[in-house]
Amino acid sequence: MDERPLANLITLGVSDLARQRAFYRDLGWTQVADEDDFAAFELRGAVLALFPLDKLAADGRGTPEAGRGGVRFTIAIIVDHPEDVDQLARRMSDAGGRVTKAPVDAEFFEGRSCYVADPEGNFFEIAWTANTDNPVSAAVRRAAGLL
Amino acid sequence: MDERPLANLITLGVSDLARQRAFYRDLGWTQVADEDDFAAFELRGAVLALFPLDKLAADGRGTPEAGRGGVRFTIAIIVDHPEDVDQLARRMSDAGGRVTKAPVDAEFFEGRSCYVADPEGNFFEIAWTANTDNPVSAAVRRAAGLL
Repeated sequence: MDERPLANLITLGVSDLARQRAFYRDLGWTQVADEDDFAAFELRGAVLALFPLDKLAADGRGTPEAGRGGVRFTIAIIVDHPEDVDQLARRMSDAGGRVTKAPVDAEFFEGRSCYVADPEGNFFEIAWTANTDNPVSAAVRRAAGLL
Repeated sequence: MDERPLANLITLGVSDLARQRAFYRDLGWTQVADEDDFAAFELRGAVLALFPLDKLAADGRGTPEAGRGGVRFTIAIIVDHPEDVDQLARRMSDAGGRVTKAPVDAEFFEGRSCYVADPEGNFFEIAWTANTDNPVSAAVRRAAGLL
């Protein structure tokens, strides 16, 4: 039996659902749910959902904590070729994202990476790793059912 | 060609790496990387990584934004049986998590759910859905390579 938990639905609490939804649609991501106050996009590995922050906090019996522009967490997008890093960064920028770190050779692994924040300051790293045998790269692919 | 981006490495910026690592280890999650300032756990669908918040923010050329106890985003853990919601909530609580919403019949779908915050206030929803054909449930499984 597979003991790993299925934990791959990331919900961002959003302030402006329409704007956030438009951003992810502009990236060409596949939308699998679209309701008045909920949207979800299917990726490989994970599903990214958008839900109004006040409703998300109420559902979880917590207080809403809107982003203040800084980094709290990141979602990494793993691409297949180094030039894909640059291409996706441009596409996210064109759609209204903010490139906080332009594509460069990565600092913590052999590869290329950059960082882009969505319109509400949720940070993505776009990464290409030269060595797909490294334990994290392999785990990422295994988790997505690709190995 | 599969156009869906591989976007399933979630990195939490942490203040106390040792404590956070101990919490996720106590859950029995499979650790695939363990360095002085980096830890990663392989789930199904996604990989959860821990990296000191100041280093994560510096790598992304952003400012660190430590959590203040509220809800900014959630990671949903999808379980197979309603009783698994209660069981995992207890396990996370025993490991040092904070149950903010005890298991109840879910408000936004047919099923059972609860919310638990990790020791640094990162929120998880634990969810069982009665209808696995709903578009989000199906997308979650497809994204993880399970359909």
